[in-house]
Amino acid sequence: MAETKGLMLLNFWPSPNGMRCRVALAEKGLEYVYREEESILECKSRLLAKSDPVRMRVPVLLHDGKPVCESLVIVQYLDEVWPDRAPLLPADPYGRAKARYWADFIDKEIFGCGLKLWKLEGEKQEEARDQFIRALKVLEGELDAKKYFGGDTFGFVDIILVPVVAWYRTYELFGIFRTEIQAPRLMAWGKRCMKRESVAMSSLPDPHKVYEFVCFLRKKNPGLQPF
Amino acid sequence: MAETKGLMLLNFWPSPNGMRCRVALAEKGLEYVYREEESILECKSRLLAKSDPVRMRVPVLLHDGKPVCESLVIVQYLDEVWPDRAPLLPADPYGRAKARYWADFIDKEIFGCGLKLWKLEGEKQEEARDQFIRALKVLEGELDAKKYFGGDTFGFVDIILVPVVAWYRTYELFGIFRTEIQAPRLMAWGKRCMKRESVAMSSLPDPHKVYEFVCFLRKKNPGLQPF
Repeated sequence: MAETKGLMLLNFWPSPNGMRCRVALAEKGLEYVYREEESILECKSRLLAKSDPVRMRVPVLLHDGKPVCESLVIVQYLDEVWPDRAPLLPADPYGRAKARYWADFIDKEIFGCGLKLWKLEGEKQEEARDQFIRALKVLEGELDAKKYFGGDTFGFVDIILVPVVAWYRTYELFGIFRTEIQAPRLMAWGKRCMKRESVAMSSLPDPHKVYEFVCFLRKKNPGLQPF
Repeated sequence: MAETKGLMLLNFWPSPNGMRCRVALAEKGLEYVYREEESILECKSRLLAKSDPVRMRVPVLLHDGKPVCESLVIVQYLDEVWPDRAPLLPADPYGRAKARYWADFIDKEIFGCGLKLWKLEGEKQEEARDQFIRALKVLEGELDAKKYFGGDTFGFVDIILVPVVAWYRTYELFGIFRTEIQAPRLMAWGKRCMKRESVAMSSLPDPHKVYEFVCFLRKKNPGLQPF
């Protein structure tokens, strides 16, 4: 495994899962080596293949050379190893259960369904669009009048969802809807998140750049799943 | 919400996710009221709709009337509320991260892909079959010569996978393969698990009954997703 001491993140810039890890690392104030897996669309680097031999997907966190894979697992790992620095999950088991439920919902109904928005066409795409808008409205209801999903403090659920800010444009253009109209509170929440230092310093990519990348990927090979 | 004190499990007998919760409850030695959601294929009970308004899916655990949804979340919740009774997740963060990674893998690549085996047909079904067998072999490699996934102790990953024992027959008959040949160690692990009191007392359904149910469901409405 990698010889590095400390923390290293293997990532590919448009990955929503990678963005989650960067924001969590920033929230915790942890220093890490960032490694962009530039060649991921052509071939997997030896380090990535060694670190996640089963799926070979970014992001991977290497901690003293030991790999941790899957963004939800990585964010929880960071929270458990550094529990005193900006706790991300609630302290009580019931609060943690709720946070994990919403993280799972976001993973499947926003980002999972979001993939379908630009991969599918015709009727299937329309189904995905309806499912996506339903999910936005569910989250709008869950956020309600709160500042963040956990209340006044930015936490686990916010981190899992925040990459959507970089992806809205892509989802909107393929799904032909406006988040501002479907879920205005969520839009305001996104703007609030973007003002946080941890989010701002995590280099969330420009939404236009993400859209261009997705168009490129669709042309090149829509079956590719780099993250 | 429900007025019950203590624990209640809303379930539908063929649900692999429900089986996980039953095994976890048995491992912890916790008493609970079991409620079979008999009418789930026709309509959701008021209690289920109230407990999981977003997805209305079994299993749901009610703890003093408060709902916990999604099996991975439920099993972790039980482990966090009763940490001293038969700990399920490893004590160290890295061990927990690995266990969560494998749980996610099993969820998607075994049970998620297993659904495709009986829902799809033709080429798509063949793809699912290849993916399923690949996943079995990955798990065979991860289990290796160990007694359980965590080593000598039956734990989180075993609980997440063990419902496969009740579903193998269905997966094999739709996918046309034999687990015994593709993953003999996994088969032996399954038999070992079935001898555990917690698994035996959790009423894992007869594999023939699961197969019959799936055939009935396919005929009735293959789009239905009761769990």
